[in-house]
Amino acid sequence: MALVNEYFLNLSDNYLFADIAKKVSAFKRTHPRIEVISLGIGDVTQPLCPAVTDALHRAVSEMETVSGFHGYGPEQGYAFLREAILKNDFATRGIHLDIKEIFINDGAKSDTGNIQELIRWDNSVGVTDPVYPVYLDSNAMIGRTGPKDDDGRWTNVAYLPCTAENNFVPQLPDRRVDVIYLCYPNNPTGTVLTRTELRKWVNYALENDALIFFDAAYEAYIQDPEIPHSIYEIRGARKCAIEFRSFSKTAGFTGLRCGYTVVPDEVTASTLAGRRVALNPLWNRRQCTKFNGASYLSQRAAEAVYTPAGREQVRRTVSYYMQNAQLLRTTLSRLGFKVYGGENAPYVWMRTPGGRSSWKFFEEMLYGAHVVCTPGVGFGPSGEGYVRFTAFGNREKTEEALARIEKWSQ
Amino acid sequence: MALVNEYFLNLSDNYLFADIAKKVSAFKRTHPRIEVISLGIGDVTQPLCPAVTDALHRAVSEMETVSGFHGYGPEQGYAFLREAILKNDFATRGIHLDIKEIFINDGAKSDTGNIQELIRWDNSVGVTDPVYPVYLDSNAMIGRTGPKDDDGRWTNVAYLPCTAENNFVPQLPDRRVDVIYLCYPNNPTGTVLTRTELRKWVNYALENDALIFFDAAYEAYIQDPEIPHSIYEIRGARKCAIEFRSFSKTAGFTGLRCGYTVVPDEVTASTLAGRRVALNPLWNRRQCTKFNGASYLSQRAAEAVYTPAGREQVRRTVSYYMQNAQLLRTTLSRLGFKVYGGENAPYVWMRTPGGRSSWKFFEEMLYGAHVVCTPGVGFGPSGEGYVRFTAFGNREKTEEALARIEKWSQ
Repeated sequence: MALVNEYFLNLSDNYLFADIAKKVSAFKRTHPRIEVISLGIGDVTQPLCPAVTDALHRAVSEMETVSGFHGYGPEQGYAFLREAILKNDFATRGIHLDIKEIFINDGAKSDTGNIQELIRWDNSVGVTDPVYPVYLDSNAMIGRTGPKDDDGRWTNVAYLPCTAENNFVPQLPDRRVDVIYLCYPNNPTGTVLTRTELRKWVNYALENDALIFFDAAYEAYIQDPEIPHSIYEIRGARKCAIEFRSFSKTAGFTGLRCGYTVVPDEVTASTLAGRRVALNPLWNRRQCTKFNGASYLSQRAAEAVYTPAGREQVRRTVSYYMQNAQLLRTTLSRLGFKVYGGENAPYVWMRTPGGRSSWKFFEEMLYGAHVVCTPGVGFGPSGEGYVRFTAFGNREKTEEALARIEKWSQ
Repeated sequence: MALVNEYFLNLSDNYLFADIAKKVSAFKRTHPRIEVISLGIGDVTQPLCPAVTDALHRAVSEMETVSGFHGYGPEQGYAFLREAILKNDFATRGIHLDIKEIFINDGAKSDTGNIQELIRWDNSVGVTDPVYPVYLDSNAMIGRTGPKDDDGRWTNVAYLPCTAENNFVPQLPDRRVDVIYLCYPNNPTGTVLTRTELRKWVNYALENDALIFFDAAYEAYIQDPEIPHSIYEIRGARKCAIEFRSFSKTAGFTGLRCGYTVVPDEVTASTLAGRRVALNPLWNRRQCTKFNGASYLSQRAAEAVYTPAGREQVRRTVSYYMQNAQLLRTTLSRLGFKVYGGENAPYVWMRTPGGRSSWKFFEEMLYGAHVVCTPGVGFGPSGEGYVRFTAFGNREKTEEALARIEKWSQ
């Protein structure tokens, strides 16, 4: 008799953004004439830059010919892209990686979800809280998070609160943690970690034989030259950290699907008997078995991001979004809201006024200003009482949304 | 302390095709002037058809504009593609599916690897033998296959031999099996199942509360009008079967990455307590958590396969490959080899002469004729004594390879 994986039944029914979409769609049904502006889901809005679309057209033209046709590529990605990454994303920051340490994928969501396959099912997990839902949900699906307690928290998870009270700096866990997920610049709070704070985590991992899964999907938005872009800027991280990167937020690839994962040769985990096992060959085996490489077109598009024209065009788009972030920060502050983040990240995190719950504020603003945000509690218990605004909108829409919020809140 | 998932350590070090590549590359190093022809890995060689590349150019041009830009698509895929699939792949064969039952992916390898996440870790698995390595390797990674016995066979797996002796028709298992993987037209043997034989499996699954994971990646190659293209042509399959389809082999998408999975609403598995749980919402939750949709470009390309021009162009490419298959069958037969398959599938399966092992014949032909095949034993124990030839080559290369084999073998 086929038995179902009952761990799935512990998950909440819906993914956060599906919940939001449902509520927005209920509003639209009852208010068909009102145009809702979404500053909710963190999806980009600006078109692909010309360097990228030129590369795409060229790659499509290649695929029309016998000699230029590309079938299966390497599961790990094409060397042309992996080499461009080594040179541009790492060597320029003094980090020297080998091509075998880079794995191209179809977006960071896949690999941040899949990476937990490499570790034992009963390892304990630590996450900053609030957090991108994929980290915990992917662990819950295999039972690693344990059952939920009465408050809806997973029992085998150490939640590391990041709130205004601790200036959004997570404290080291006070219980055993085998794997820690860190995302910086942070989704959803839009805050960053200084080099000193990040070093604290690497040292913790080295001392406790823990692993760090470091999600750097938003590194392109860092403005402050003192903030590390990669965890490998910290000494010792090559022994304990796996890093995830994405072209989605860097270059608007949410619809193209391309990112990459760095698994350094020195990263190991232990067998029960105490033998060290390198994770790089295991991840390679995982990818060769369950993944067939990213699209050739997406990889040629990603390569174009590193050309001089591509870099300049991407820089302008990032700057456009960061001006939105600035606009969100200053306007919401002026209206009396308490805002955080948005200086080195495309998200602004806002305290709900009057101690309202995240979902209550979400609904009030949807019905009052016709603007959608993301309820902070959807990212975890410490997100309660906050909402997230994305800076990835069009400028005009962002301005219009802020004008509506101003009118509604005064 | 982070502990490794030790189930990975039970896997053989390399994926089959990586092993072959290593041996070929060793040959090339010692024989740098000899051009090797590969009829090994099942990758297509003909360029994308004009209907597809036109759609790709158009989609790239859309992505250059604010109004035409597409960011995150639905995790389940765009409605335009799912509707084209319902209409063209199923309704025309009298199968009526709902759009919610179709999940677009980045290729069938991902989903045939991931589908096992939905079932309990200790469910037992049945596979036809020889078999596409992904089915067992993906189950081994989570421990479901049990340890290996002295002969290298997984102990919690029922191997269902398909050899010349039983005319490549698998017999029903004589032990408890909760999940059965079937791939028809078959990779690697190139054989098919009649409607009567397929019905036998659906009835077995219904009677034993088992699930069938049906891989139909090669259905476009079926020539005989009596052979079913989808398992849903069999009554009752909607209650017990999940089907995988791919554009890779249908329309040459191995480099573009697009396929789809059908999870009918009625397919259920049981909890330990005996409650039935529908798998469609669970698969949806899985995809929403660990996948972010297939590339917009790939989905527009796949849609173009269903246009009148696309259908005609794809039909011609399929016919080109099937002429290769015919050439392989007739020439190898004439040379005295025993060949199977290749009539409704792009693979020809051949008995090695004189009882040679698969790898021994592989090496002899590589060094003697400079032609690469795939050793049958790489697909499982019952593949020993066979090799696979792919019909996906260029015609000239296929002819040249056969001429070399003729010269070498006489």
